[in-house]
Amino acid sequence: MNDEMYEPLTVKTLGSRLVGIDAVNSILGHDLSKWSVNEVGDGNLNLVFIVKSELGSVIVKQALPYVRLVGDSWPLPLKRAFFEYHALIRQAERDPGSVPKIYHFDETQAIIVMEFFTPHIILRYSLIAGNKHEGLAKVLGNFCARTLFRGSDLSMKAAKRKADVALFAENIELCDITETLVFSDPYFDAERNHHNSALEPLVASLRADVDLKVEAHHLKAKFCNNAQTMLHGDFHTGSVMVTKTDTKVIDPEFVLYGPMGFDIGMLFANFWMSYFSQPGHASKVGQRDDYQEWILSVVEEVWNVFIMEFSCLWRTERTGILYERSLFEDQGHDLGSEQALEHRLKEIWQDTLGFAGIEIIRRTLSLAHNADAETISDEALKTQCEACGLVLGRQLVINRSDLHSIKEVHDQIRNIQKGKQI
Amino acid sequence: MNDEMYEPLTVKTLGSRLVGIDAVNSILGHDLSKWSVNEVGDGNLNLVFIVKSELGSVIVKQALPYVRLVGDSWPLPLKRAFFEYHALIRQAERDPGSVPKIYHFDETQAIIVMEFFTPHIILRYSLIAGNKHEGLAKVLGNFCARTLFRGSDLSMKAAKRKADVALFAENIELCDITETLVFSDPYFDAERNHHNSALEPLVASLRADVDLKVEAHHLKAKFCNNAQTMLHGDFHTGSVMVTKTDTKVIDPEFVLYGPMGFDIGMLFANFWMSYFSQPGHASKVGQRDDYQEWILSVVEEVWNVFIMEFSCLWRTERTGILYERSLFEDQGHDLGSEQALEHRLKEIWQDTLGFAGIEIIRRTLSLAHNADAETISDEALKTQCEACGLVLGRQLVINRSDLHSIKEVHDQIRNIQKGKQI
Repeated sequence: MNDEMYEPLTVKTLGSRLVGIDAVNSILGHDLSKWSVNEVGDGNLNLVFIVKSELGSVIVKQALPYVRLVGDSWPLPLKRAFFEYHALIRQAERDPGSVPKIYHFDETQAIIVMEFFTPHIILRYSLIAGNKHEGLAKVLGNFCARTLFRGSDLSMKAAKRKADVALFAENIELCDITETLVFSDPYFDAERNHHNSALEPLVASLRADVDLKVEAHHLKAKFCNNAQTMLHGDFHTGSVMVTKTDTKVIDPEFVLYGPMGFDIGMLFANFWMSYFSQPGHASKVGQRDDYQEWILSVVEEVWNVFIMEFSCLWRTERTGILYERSLFEDQGHDLGSEQALEHRLKEIWQDTLGFAGIEIIRRTLSLAHNADAETISDEALKTQCEACGLVLGRQLVINRSDLHSIKEVHDQIRNIQKGKQI
Repeated sequence: MNDEMYEPLTVKTLGSRLVGIDAVNSILGHDLSKWSVNEVGDGNLNLVFIVKSELGSVIVKQALPYVRLVGDSWPLPLKRAFFEYHALIRQAERDPGSVPKIYHFDETQAIIVMEFFTPHIILRYSLIAGNKHEGLAKVLGNFCARTLFRGSDLSMKAAKRKADVALFAENIELCDITETLVFSDPYFDAERNHHNSALEPLVASLRADVDLKVEAHHLKAKFCNNAQTMLHGDFHTGSVMVTKTDTKVIDPEFVLYGPMGFDIGMLFANFWMSYFSQPGHASKVGQRDDYQEWILSVVEEVWNVFIMEFSCLWRTERTGILYERSLFEDQGHDLGSEQALEHRLKEIWQDTLGFAGIEIIRRTLSLAHNADAETISDEALKTQCEACGLVLGRQLVINRSDLHSIKEVHDQIRNIQKGKQI
């Protein structure tokens, strides 16, 4: 067999296939007998292994030619590893320390060998467990501000940005998943959909809601056409790893050029779904009340950190072709650049709310649901959690231009949970 | 010398270099002694030759490695011929008969051999001469509707559109000309600018106008990031060829993926500049009054034809990933798709006005001015023409969301010319 032909790794073959690669050996050492290999089973799409030795540890992620969760009936190109690799190196440049270091990339084998974060766990599960995390909002807000700003025409040279637009435009199949599962399937009886049958009346009313569908597709048009910046593309609480005090971002294989509000919107949606799910994870009524408020405080802080850092970058790193300093500051028109910043932040805010609504609705009606709700064993509480999400989702999509502050949104969320608006 | 190395054509070498190419011979015949070759000197960027024989005629267009108008101090890649070729074949598919047929394309030599339109002349010069043209608005309106709709996610398969976005994203240097000369240079004292010194007070007030600069850059951001469809990219009255009854579109080498309103906006701007220029071309006062109204009637008809054809395509050819029929018509929600169409048309309208304003301002203050004004020998009339344009330009950029109909815009234009708003 040709060495260069793609072959999936197994726990047994991984060591012999990777030993001898300098960058891998420099972490794990050359002595294969000291390596331990474990497959991590929780990815939807890929093979993921943790490899450890006395000297260190790495994550080995390998794309499969199909969706792991579904099997070979749903083919998916290996090239997604290439896009993830290119996203990771750009994110590392733009927000150093926020994403795993890459030790080795093999395009043919669709393998990325990267930093293993330990004792980190996936944020989504930590929120289900009711854990608080220091510094979480700061890392997430800065990550959004820095990657969104520095991947855009506000910062990059036009030729470099255009080359990246072309590069990531090839990530067609993963974009297609978002375009279909996120923006279209939830709004009609699509084949891969499933939902909690207790939600049936609410689902029927949402699918009959023409305004909602039209607005959802205005947002889809924005997602598809508005190549403002390099997005993570799948920035939910399952793509964040945490300890009590540390936060890292992983898994950008859905990377694309798209509108700035998409990543933040998806993130907020997943925090808000976690909020609604908390009663389902409480050991007694009211036990998670304080924790729910902590979740909202994180979202509020993410937004505030985002605004602060984005504004700082706007004022100090605006080296791209939009709103050039030569036209504003250099002419004594600082006021103009501040006016333009306000305009951009307002647009990001409205898009954030809209995309958040889209994400909540799809996580309840389309193929991929959230563990936050799915792991609630009490059916009534699960239904209540999902119904609150759907009500909020519709509200955000339809009324995103009438919601002016995060506090206003959080008041609505509290009211929706109290049943006042259902 | 390697045959494959790029070499500019001359009147002397053209025949021997092109004879023997089947597609060329099939038009001109094999007998080189019967070919006549003339260089057409009026292109800003390229070499253009008309080649005729008793059997037929062709245009031979060859890119130079620099801007022809300026010389080799301003290099420009040969690859623009490749982009023009790819734009032309797509426009021909999307609106058959509107653009020159291509007989031969040589990528290395940056040569396109294409249909010679005769006795067509450039629309800009025909408008200066005061000629009317039957069917002009219909061709231009349909061209816009068909190319803009059929090059977008409303019509194309997502994978095909993404491949085209990537392809045309490489047209960096020509886009850079638009990004710089159209959207930035006019708003400060940039090196390549020049303007009529009699406009100085008006120019100073425009360059001190922070709101105008901010809005101009919101439009630039849209131009750079909003890859809605394949644009012609340079759709002014110099890119249209006409006879009394026929209309053709040429020269799409500035092709890019961008916002739908850009092409129409540029076209309208050039008609409106022609309107203001008419008194400068009249042989006596009032002689062109009727002709000016004819120009406005053309613009109005272009817009109406555009709306009608775009709406028709929306209702019958919406085969892309946006506003899918499966979500609307197939669910009995035709109302929703009509609502979405109105929304899209409104967006295109506002963008059209904004980009029209941008185009007028840059044609008066930046590097490339229009023959419409430049050929006016009476300095006072020339100044009046340019001043009216600048006033309209600012008005369109700043107030584009408050102008609701083409009639309203045309009333303003008439008033501006009467000096009521200067």
